[in-house]
Amino acid sequence: MTSRVQSVLNEAEYIVGYKTYIDLIRNFLTHQQVVATGMRQEIDRCREAIRLAGEGHRVAVVSSGDAGVYGMAGIIIECLEQEGLLELPLEIVPGVTAASAAASMLGAPLMHDFAVISLSDLLTPWEVIEKRVRLAAEGDFILAIYNPKSLGRTQHIETVRELLLTYRHPYTPVGLVREALRGEESNVQITNLADFTNYPIDMLTTVIVGNSQTRIVGSYMVTPRGYKL
Amino acid sequence: MTSRVQSVLNEAEYIVGYKTYIDLIRNFLTHQQVVATGMRQEIDRCREAIRLAGEGHRVAVVSSGDAGVYGMAGIIIECLEQEGLLELPLEIVPGVTAASAAASMLGAPLMHDFAVISLSDLLTPWEVIEKRVRLAAEGDFILAIYNPKSLGRTQHIETVRELLLTYRHPYTPVGLVREALRGEESNVQITNLADFTNYPIDMLTTVIVGNSQTRIVGSYMVTPRGYKL
Repeated sequence: MTSRVQSVLNEAEYIVGYKTYIDLIRNFLTHQQVVATGMRQEIDRCREAIRLAGEGHRVAVVSSGDAGVYGMAGIIIECLEQEGLLELPLEIVPGVTAASAAASMLGAPLMHDFAVISLSDLLTPWEVIEKRVRLAAEGDFILAIYNPKSLGRTQHIETVRELLLTYRHPYTPVGLVREALRGEESNVQITNLADFTNYPIDMLTTVIVGNSQTRIVGSYMVTPRGYKL
Repeated sequence: MTSRVQSVLNEAEYIVGYKTYIDLIRNFLTHQQVVATGMRQEIDRCREAIRLAGEGHRVAVVSSGDAGVYGMAGIIIECLEQEGLLELPLEIVPGVTAASAAASMLGAPLMHDFAVISLSDLLTPWEVIEKRVRLAAEGDFILAIYNPKSLGRTQHIETVRELLLTYRHPYTPVGLVREALRGEESNVQITNLADFTNYPIDMLTTVIVGNSQTRIVGSYMVTPRGYKL
């Protein structure tokens, strides 16, 4: 958590967010009123936050990771637009996105160009996602895959694996990080492209697939930037 | 800066880094010895940090943004490998990478899949970079472009603009953020694909190019995630 996030939370009268994320910051809250809502209620959360802000309150809407990467920042602005309230003061406070958090626990896999792709097809047609995976593979991008799997969506990651195997070596390093940087909850696994779907993967996992240069160095996964040592 | 970075700096005996980045954190330093080196002396910095750590000192090597994205994390591990010192304790502390920092000042451009590409050809052949830009454009990825221009390298960003214009509308929003989140030093500009190279761009600028869905909402640049409001 950045110092700016801490000061924004301290100054807020209301904290609005998905209850799982609110629970992650309970220890930082003192006087604030909490508005916690369930999964997939993003629009309700925005409307409630905007209603409170419209009444003159200081409101903080929380996301996990970086609110600016698949987080709440966009829908807040879209709701403000729809309600004709774009002049309300808004600060978007960036955070450490899951790709960076996961990478830090694996070593240094993101030292070169990378693509961030979510496999969630709730809001995006699967054909678009699949096309992006294929093009990222062709471009030898490192991949940071968000939302790799959920209870109702288990095959996409297998399709991605097969697709990537047509471009990359089966021994290409793959890192799996579950609940990155959440203390004892965190789980880290370094494996390879052929095998990685045999390990537990769920919606709290970030999958980082190396490019053609990525290698295992001791206990680390590293993509060399290209320095001559 | 995250609270973890603050505590690591506090616990360090030595701070090693590029002098421009050291200057950014001078106010946070008290007792630490500083080893500041010039640009492009990454390998020297690593060797010095490893030498000090090998003597038993607590050493912090600093990067700007996230050390795990085009930063010092990878070369440190490679140097440790070369010197046979991979067992030295190492913690990689992630930060807010320039894409996230810049996005937060523009609105919410990174709400969907994006590609992070550096235009620096010091360590990467230009053909590889150009191919990645083309594939990212074809995949309708948002682009976060690092190192878009330097004194000796001014044409690449023009080539990128022309390439992107073959895939995207000239009015595609483009955000330019110089020295993101560095207080009064920061400079933010929202423009479009046709015009953006007419604005000042240098190596401290991050360029964010929208995808086919990105639009200007009031004073913000937003890529809708796809929610139906």
